[in-house]
Amino acid sequence: MQLEAEIKKTIRDIPDYPKPGVVFKDISPLLASPRLVDQMLNEQVRYWAGKNIDAVAAIEARGFIFGSLLAHALKCPFIPVRKSGKLPYKTMSQDYSLEYGKASIEMHIDSIEKEWNVLVHDDLLATGGTAIAAGNLVQKLGGKVIGFSFLVNLSFLPGEKNLKEKFSTDIFYLAEY
Amino acid sequence: MQLEAEIKKTIRDIPDYPKPGVVFKDISPLLASPRLVDQMLNEQVRYWAGKNIDAVAAIEARGFIFGSLLAHALKCPFIPVRKSGKLPYKTMSQDYSLEYGKASIEMHIDSIEKEWNVLVHDDLLATGGTAIAAGNLVQKLGGKVIGFSFLVNLSFLPGEKNLKEKFSTDIFYLAEY
Repeated sequence: MQLEAEIKKTIRDIPDYPKPGVVFKDISPLLASPRLVDQMLNEQVRYWAGKNIDAVAAIEARGFIFGSLLAHALKCPFIPVRKSGKLPYKTMSQDYSLEYGKASIEMHIDSIEKEWNVLVHDDLLATGGTAIAAGNLVQKLGGKVIGFSFLVNLSFLPGEKNLKEKFSTDIFYLAEY
Repeated sequence: MQLEAEIKKTIRDIPDYPKPGVVFKDISPLLASPRLVDQMLNEQVRYWAGKNIDAVAAIEARGFIFGSLLAHALKCPFIPVRKSGKLPYKTMSQDYSLEYGKASIEMHIDSIEKEWNVLVHDDLLATGGTAIAAGNLVQKLGGKVIGFSFLVNLSFLPGEKNLKEKFSTDIFYLAEY
């Protein structure tokens, strides 16, 4: 079976989570298949290898799962992007809007060297708020956003469009709805 | 340099985090070194390979980083252990004590098959509260705890002793203080 079809068949729909009317895409059945994880990793690595990536910045918490696999496969540093207050050293912070209110994410101020090409990873692209905030942080810290890598794009939401308005860079994903 | 010495030299001490009097061990400088990450992964894989591990259960959020590398290297399922309310499907929950009050962690009820040998991973062993809770969850879901793998053991705290009182199983770590 084609990888995208298999991913979509394996992801579990959770109706009304985290709130009524939303259908959540649960990736944990993917993680339970070592064969699928390996294929999903390899497909991302094939796409990004040779693109001079200096580091992978991955967004807490689900983004850590493939983020560390990607960084390891691409032989580059893994940079954690975390929710406010979770990183112990000095941080740079970036606010972003949620449907109601605001949140913020942080990176350590010494996590990126000047001019590094940084790949941003998260499991899922929805409206793009968190990914844009992570990209902004990378730039504030002196890096370049060389691209975004996702497992899944909810393409009925404007995440890809929103990302493209802010960053003229590569956006890659393995499956879309 | 011996791996343990290099790990300890690379980890960053953060005084008075998360509260006065505590010295936090910041592992992010380790993650910034692809060579060290690879060596740390290989040393864990060497230890656990051939021990019939059926799945790796990793504790949110830092545990996801090496947890997914371990699961991938051992070619077995990755099972997320998450804080209360973070997993979207039906969960089993386990309370554990914090210094003040309680917290709980969860696993999906279908994440473990009966009799599976499950390796529990977290980055750091302190008093062992979270690791014991994760081990209890594995057992409640029908699995066997085949061992615990940590990057760092704070051996001036009673985590290893506490774990051994609850589980007659292997405990492995790469570095201790």
